[in-house]
Amino acid sequence: MYTATSFVRVSMPDSDIMPKALITKRGISSLLKPKLHIPAGGINKKSNVGCSKNLSTLKAPDTIPVSQYQSQTDIYTETDNHRLYKQTFQVRSYEASADMTISVDTVLNYLQEAAVNYVRSIGFVDGSGVGRTPEMSKQNLGWVVAKMRVVFDQYPTWNDLVQVVAWISASGRNGICCNSIIRDSKTGAILIRASSIWVMMNMNTRRLCKIPEEERAVELEPYFYDLSPFVHEDSEKAVSKLDNDTADDIFKGLTPKWTDIDFNLHVNNAKYISWILESIPDSLALTHKISSLTLEYTRECAHNDVLQSLVAVSTVNTNNINGAVYETDEAQSRHLIRLEDGAEILRARIEWRPRK
Amino acid sequence: MYTATSFVRVSMPDSDIMPKALITKRGISSLLKPKLHIPAGGINKKSNVGCSKNLSTLKAPDTIPVSQYQSQTDIYTETDNHRLYKQTFQVRSYEASADMTISVDTVLNYLQEAAVNYVRSIGFVDGSGVGRTPEMSKQNLGWVVAKMRVVFDQYPTWNDLVQVVAWISASGRNGICCNSIIRDSKTGAILIRASSIWVMMNMNTRRLCKIPEEERAVELEPYFYDLSPFVHEDSEKAVSKLDNDTADDIFKGLTPKWTDIDFNLHVNNAKYISWILESIPDSLALTHKISSLTLEYTRECAHNDVLQSLVAVSTVNTNNINGAVYETDEAQSRHLIRLEDGAEILRARIEWRPRK
Repeated sequence: MYTATSFVRVSMPDSDIMPKALITKRGISSLLKPKLHIPAGGINKKSNVGCSKNLSTLKAPDTIPVSQYQSQTDIYTETDNHRLYKQTFQVRSYEASADMTISVDTVLNYLQEAAVNYVRSIGFVDGSGVGRTPEMSKQNLGWVVAKMRVVFDQYPTWNDLVQVVAWISASGRNGICCNSIIRDSKTGAILIRASSIWVMMNMNTRRLCKIPEEERAVELEPYFYDLSPFVHEDSEKAVSKLDNDTADDIFKGLTPKWTDIDFNLHVNNAKYISWILESIPDSLALTHKISSLTLEYTRECAHNDVLQSLVAVSTVNTNNINGAVYETDEAQSRHLIRLEDGAEILRARIEWRPRK
Repeated sequence: MYTATSFVRVSMPDSDIMPKALITKRGISSLLKPKLHIPAGGINKKSNVGCSKNLSTLKAPDTIPVSQYQSQTDIYTETDNHRLYKQTFQVRSYEASADMTISVDTVLNYLQEAAVNYVRSIGFVDGSGVGRTPEMSKQNLGWVVAKMRVVFDQYPTWNDLVQVVAWISASGRNGICCNSIIRDSKTGAILIRASSIWVMMNMNTRRLCKIPEEERAVELEPYFYDLSPFVHEDSEKAVSKLDNDTADDIFKGLTPKWTDIDFNLHVNNAKYISWILESIPDSLALTHKISSLTLEYTRECAHNDVLQSLVAVSTVNTNNINGAVYETDEAQSRHLIRLEDGAEILRARIEWRPRK
């Protein structure tokens, strides 16, 4: 669900197992007006400053008592008129990084899995895949993700039981916001928070469109959960675009392989994250942990595209006038994935905190 | 557990979170005498011809009735004197390939996860990680994987519940064989079979060694399960080595990234598989499915190594004298991962069957 286009491609009438070039002709930024604002308390601290006070309603696991379905391996609980969704995961050996904590791509996979199972559980599914309401299927409308932000307050480690809680809310009149928290199953402590903004596309014209009023009122609003998003962001901190002059490094000749195509026939999100994370120099990655990750998607990426990954790393310590990043510095990295002709696929900003 | 060296590196006394160069000075083939032989019925058919008849003892799920431990997300059942281990997985959305079936790297991850949990459950674990018996810890001995073979009879698909059943058996006097099957949780049908051979290394000298008789009798044999391996192989089909002349393609400049290092501080197995699978031309991968995978490990790979991936594809239809592979042909690909100086890391052979 968190791939740039997974809600789109599944509904293409000509879908088959062969990946095809499907580049969206128009960017997303022209329609999207993000409504994320940073609160006075700031973000990205280990405390929950910056989160809505409503999060307290989620702290006690027994506030959502009805288990409607339990599989052998995962706990699916849909309650409160299906407006909250919970799924439990146990961090597996191969999902842990060198320091035994959960890997970033695993976190994104957990978020995707819970979101996919949520929309399936409330019937947002048609013959072509998951995510579309019945009316959207009729009108051949689909979702595209415009932006995603994940804040890592704490990292669970190998063997930990964690619970993903997911819900959707409005994002202005023309978007929806998919919200998730990952919390410690034993203590209820919130470890990771995520939000993503999705907008609607007319699949016939391949152009973004407004959400039809009736569609919104009848099919979407019943599922909107009145819980403020857990992830806020200063609108001034929109991800600035890198270019040849501002990038530290440019990795060229990146090509999605057949193994990178998921069942939506798109390059899977894990591959985007790989291209971004692999561009990070060891000197930063081995001394810092990611404290937040912001992704802004512009275009779809096709199986046969050849891409470039640009990266620039800087300290957020303004005393380091030469821009050097030391082990004890907060840092940030900026990223751009683009086609060889310069067309932008996505940009990202990662905030890093010292490991010690 | 299925990484080339995961049983080794965890026991290094100098381990910390920074990956280090740890190249085994001596290959494995000098000690290992594989005892795998193909039966008259052949292998690699959708029927179970070629498997031991003992597999029938596993067909009924209720033959292993005692559930000693159940977590919230996975079912761990250790029974029969801890000589069989079972773990259930539900194939998640991000674990499916473009055709909705489970991806090959996910299969290897499931096998690793069950094996790691098995050896942990029987106490083969010390302060440095999983896999070592108490006596091995005292003598500073570790395991290295020499060979792995996986046979894909059928592919489970997204949402399917599957059960991994794992056990160990002897492999000559100086090795152990880790066996696994993946079966459909509902029908019990065997979908995937795997075996891997592990040999012992003296961690002080970094050389392979014989398993001490007492260690073998007291600590290992009680766990050997008298069930013939499910995977057989004609010894004449040892994986032949590719070189510059016999390879179709050579992919150069491959480097393990910090994201490829697992908590054993090794390049994780998924990365090896990626290097191999990404070298497969689309023309083969999109028309065929993998029917078997054989990996032979020679050396460890370190974080700072620069590698090459060699590939050669051929038909097994001897009528195609020009070697061309058509959509309806059985095919095979051979692979070599080596250091830039030519030192071999691993070789692989993959058998492919037409998708239709």
